[in-house]
Order: sequence, then structure tokens, then C-alpha cells
Amino acid sequence: MPGPKGGEGSKARMPGRRARRDAINTVRPAPIFVLDNPQMGENIGAAARAMLNFGVFGLRLVNPRDGWPNPKAGALAAGASLVVDQARVYDSLAEALADCHYVQATTARTREMSLPILSPADAALALKPRIDAGQICAVVFGPERSGLTNDDVARADAIISIPVNPAFASINLAQSALIMAYEWAQADGRETESGQWERETPSTRENFDGLINHLYEELEATGYFFPAARRNVMRRNLRTIFTRAQLTENEVQTLRGVIKSLARKRGPKT
Amino acid sequence: MPGPKGGEGSKARMPGRRARRDAINTVRPAPIFVLDNPQMGENIGAAARAMLNFGVFGLRLVNPRDGWPNPKAGALAAGASLVVDQARVYDSLAEALADCHYVQATTARTREMSLPILSPADAALALKPRIDAGQICAVVFGPERSGLTNDDVARADAIISIPVNPAFASINLAQSALIMAYEWAQADGRETESGQWERETPSTRENFDGLINHLYEELEATGYFFPAARRNVMRRNLRTIFTRAQLTENEVQTLRGVIKSLARKRGPKT
Repeated sequence: MPGPKGGEGSKARMPGRRARRDAINTVRPAPIFVLDNPQMGENIGAAARAMLNFGVFGLRLVNPRDGWPNPKAGALAAGASLVVDQARVYDSLAEALADCHYVQATTARTREMSLPILSPADAALALKPRIDAGQICAVVFGPERSGLTNDDVARADAIISIPVNPAFASINLAQSALIMAYEWAQADGRETESGQWERETPSTRENFDGLINHLYEELEATGYFFPAARRNVMRRNLRTIFTRAQLTENEVQTLRGVIKSLARKRGPKT
Repeated sequence: MPGPKGGEGSKARMPGRRARRDAINTVRPAPIFVLDNPQMGENIGAAARAMLNFGVFGLRLVNPRDGWPNPKAGALAAGASLVVDQARVYDSLAEALADCHYVQATTARTREMSLPILSPADAALALKPRIDAGQICAVVFGPERSGLTNDDVARADAIISIPVNPAFASINLAQSALIMAYEWAQADGRETESGQWERETPSTRENFDGLINHLYEELEATGYFFPAARRNVMRRNLRTIFTRAQLTENEVQTLRGVIKSLARKRGPKT
């Protein structure tokens, strides 16, 4: 899997850069905010500013429309350039989430998807013990106009629904990021019990995706995805079933063995 | 006391205006957001949008720097023009708060003032039973750069402190409005006990200010405010003492009688 483009190593050193990086490296652990296909640089900057106000430093961008770096993001960040400068850029949401153990996706519309739906406050409370146990956790925000696709949402362990006024509902990217960062800061100030997550670290997204893709391939070979028009929905439903199981690395390996064994009984692929 | 400038009666009727007004008039009661000396129209518009997303409709403006109406506010409101169009404009914070029973002031810095300091969530929970009991409640936001003056803050019953990252702390007007509107919506969704406030309606700000100004005048006449350089601080401290008492209308009348009686004993003013 290709590494991130840009990010920490990609720019010439500037005066004060080390001091700012030190400032980032000494901060408390927090979730990473992932902006999927963000459109306007101004919105990326405003989101970065909202994040930094509440102690969220890690920013990942999937295919920013206007390329990266984007000077408009720096201008709107209003001092939050340390978040913008260290943003990492990825070609796909899967790559951006590869090292993550737990992922939440923000959505405006409700989805017909079998994933838990959390309020912003409950989402932050779900992040807190995982972050305390050292897991890498991400909150994904969709593009400004369209929001996340169903396939993107299906990569998450849970859906965050921000309860806006249904008669208006025009919350934007930076506002969503502000509310999630704010709720993170509230949750981060509380004592929680991280014992469960210290015993059971979930698989990274990369290994989980390996399992799911393995399953897809073997099912494809058997002609399971029929009719073809339903393939995407069938795949998404399978993915969310296994997502909800919150598999550990060991369990992912176990299931890969199960798939391999079942496929072998069927005979080699033709 | 002069009435508000602008507001509902000040503009020619436009098509669709009645429908939009009806939309406002049928909404749930909510706190009023008061922007004191706001500078940029864009920020007023962004605040209006944040408010409407979370069901807060009442907007009052004290001396907006660039006059009113301001087309830049409408542009940034992104559909929240019904909030912007019905904003009322006042010459002073005292006038904007005259009919209010309970007032909260947002501040970035901590103040040396003897008022309760609330988190945004606790502030919203304090508003909820009062709003349910029919009180007019306001949340005051200061100008973008400088924030509220101490004299402005002293007009509030409580201070709201938004717990931002101390190493950054660059939360702006629209962000503050968003967080307070968001927390209001959270609190509004809960059951609370409004019995206390149904029994004891606090005095309006106008009558409370009448008491305080009466007290100031009588103390002025006795030479109480000495040295003169301390006058403002001494007045503010007196105001906050009586604010904390959460006086009812009857109690305000009682105290005016007390002041009158004490002053009479001293003899007529010279």
C-alpha cells in the first residue's frame, strides 16, 4: 500500500518549524480527522482552526479537489497552520484509514446501514477509552455538497449523526468539525475505563480490509454476487456485518483461515 | 426607553415574507442571541446560520459596526436569512437586554468578577427550565477582536467560558454561537424541572437596571464612590452582588423602597 503523499517530510524546513512540530508532538492523544474529497481550501483551513481550538491535531485529506498544499487553507486556518502544514494526503479513503483501529463517519442523512448511530457526545465518549488505550481512531467527514457515499460510510464502525434543525440543516464542514472537536475535548476531560480496549485491540483497517477483500474475491469466484446490479449493496452489507463484530487481529487471521479452508474444499479457482 | 431600530416593522413587505415569519413564530421557544458591537457582516451571517441549524431564531445586534441591514450578513447566512431579516438593532446593550429575565455572557478570558462561570453545557441546562417557564433569556457575544468589556459582562447573571485549547484559543464569533446553539439544542431535548421558575420570575433587566441606577445615584450623592478612579469597579461590584441575588420584580420594588427610605433619612439631595 503506498504511503501518504506530502505530510511531515515533504516541505523544506522553515524557521520555527521544529518548535511547532514539538508543540504538536507533546500534545495529548486525540482522534484524527479525515476529510474525504474536500472541495474548498477555505473549508479545510476553517476545519483545522476548529480542531486546534479543541486539541485535535491530526488531519488527513483524501483527494482534496484543488490539490495540496492549498494557500487558501493556510489563510483560513488563522494560526492553525501547524495542523494544515502537517496534514497528510491520500489517494483513497481506504489508504487514509489503513492504520486505524476504530473509525466513525459523520453523515447528514440517515442511512439504511446496519451500523450504530451515535450523537456527537456519545461518539466522543466511544472514542475516549480507545484513544486512552493507544488505538488510532479516525472521524471521517464527507465532501461539502454531497457528503460521504454509502461505500465510504460502510468503512466506519459507527455513524455520527449531528442532530440539526430538520427545517434548515445546512451545517457545513467546518461546523461539523467544530462540534466533533468540541465534544472530543469534553469527553477527553472525563475519567473513563479503558480496560476493555487494553485487553482487546481491534484489527487495523488495513488487515480488516484484507479479510473483506479476500472474502469478496472468493465469493466473486463462486458467482455469489448475483444479480450484478446488487453487487455493491451485497458487499456493503457483508462489510458492515464484520465491522460490527469489532474483530481483533487474531480473529481476522482466524476468519481468513476459514475462508481459505472453505474455498479449498470447493477446489482451485478456474 | 427607545424601542428597537429595524426589526420586524422596518422593511417593506416582500413576497414570501409572511410565510417565513410564520415559520419563525411557530418554532419552539429558545434563548435570544445578542451580538454586542459585531464588526463583520460575514460573521453575523455565519452566526445566524449556526443558530438556525440548532433552532435558535432570535437575534439582536448592538451597534453593528458596518450598519444594518448588511448584505454581507445575508450572503453568509446561507439560507438563514429569516434570522438575519428579523434581527433587531439597539443602541446599547442595556436596551437590547431590557425585557430579559436572565442573561449569560460569553467570554474568552476569565474575569475577576463574582459571577458564576458555566461551561456551555451547564449554561444551556441553566437556560432550559427558565425558557420552559416563559422567561426571556439572552446569551451575549462580544465583538470579534476585543470581546465583551467588564461593564458588559457585569450585566449578565452568569459567565459562559468555552474551554478551548489554551495554547491556541482562537475561537471566533460564529464558532462560539455554534457551540452555544448546539448545546441549547442538546438541553432543549431533555426533560427538566421548571417549577422553580414558574413560581419566581426574576425581574426584567429594565427594572433591575432601574434599581441599580437608583442606587448609583443615591450613592453618588453621598460621595460613596471615592476615589473617583475606582468608581467603575465599585459600581460593577455592586451590580454583580444584586445580580447574583436573582431578584424578583417584588424584591426590586422592595429594595427601591429601602434605598428611598435610607436616602430620605439622610435628607434631600443638595
